[in-house]
Amino acid sequence: MSIRIKTNETTEAWRAMLLAHRRVTHELDRDLRTHTDLNLGWYEVLLVLAASENERLRMNELADRMILSRSATTRLVDRLERDGLVDRFVCDSDRRGMEVTLTDQGREKFVEAGRIHFSGIQDRFGNHLTDEERATITSALGRVADANAIPETDAHCPT
Amino acid sequence: MSIRIKTNETTEAWRAMLLAHRRVTHELDRDLRTHTDLNLGWYEVLLVLAASENERLRMNELADRMILSRSATTRLVDRLERDGLVDRFVCDSDRRGMEVTLTDQGREKFVEAGRIHFSGIQDRFGNHLTDEERATITSALGRVADANAIPETDAHCPT
Repeated sequence: MSIRIKTNETTEAWRAMLLAHRRVTHELDRDLRTHTDLNLGWYEVLLVLAASENERLRMNELADRMILSRSATTRLVDRLERDGLVDRFVCDSDRRGMEVTLTDQGREKFVEAGRIHFSGIQDRFGNHLTDEERATITSALGRVADANAIPETDAHCPT
Repeated sequence: MSIRIKTNETTEAWRAMLLAHRRVTHELDRDLRTHTDLNLGWYEVLLVLAASENERLRMNELADRMILSRSATTRLVDRLERDGLVDRFVCDSDRRGMEVTLTDQGREKFVEAGRIHFSGIQDRFGNHLTDEERATITSALGRVADANAIPETDAHCPT
């Protein structure tokens, strides 16, 4: 006895996206491990901090902005702090909160790994798409992301 | 001092895909938790088994076919076995190998949860796309997935 699994054009598109996502992130992770001493999760923490105002964020907001890594943010930050790439400290104004900030060494490491990661995205993703396909993916999947947006939290310690 | 993060049309498309992936899977996971006693990881194990020849797979092949869940396959299978939804046993012919198989109860649970999951994919993903966009995503991201394919392993116990 076998189960009929219902599929249609939408589940096919969904599956193509899942497969592309899984396989490309797998390769991007491998690229980073091969050429730097970071993996994709550690890299993403540095990226999210680098893209933030003053290169600092509250822990919960950092976790919310992570879209790439499969690991828990706290564990990633523990390791980066041990290696001197980020600092973590209690908010002055709200002692339950923690903020994470990029160190000079973390900034340097991010710039170095960023080159590898950027060229990986071109090679493994962009080079397989036409300009038109790229534009469609950006607008169509951007619309899907907007339709499923998660409410924002506070990015910084309260002042 | 602020870091200039290099972006272009490709990184924009990549980011749109990552955000859509993260947010839709987050909602699909919530749908399953709300309406069944499965989460997305448990559901995916049942789905992969249901889609396999004879509804059974070796553990390593099961792990390779998981494209949706962020949890370790072994932990997911442990829990499903405890609930009677899958069985696990040592390969007769190769005692180092383990195979996982769907139980009758697992099949029933999969069919029930499959309805929720199918309609979630339509609501949260498909309904935001035109037919043309859906077709572009399927062919373009299918090509990206093929270009980054991972070599296949043995699906079943050796005979």
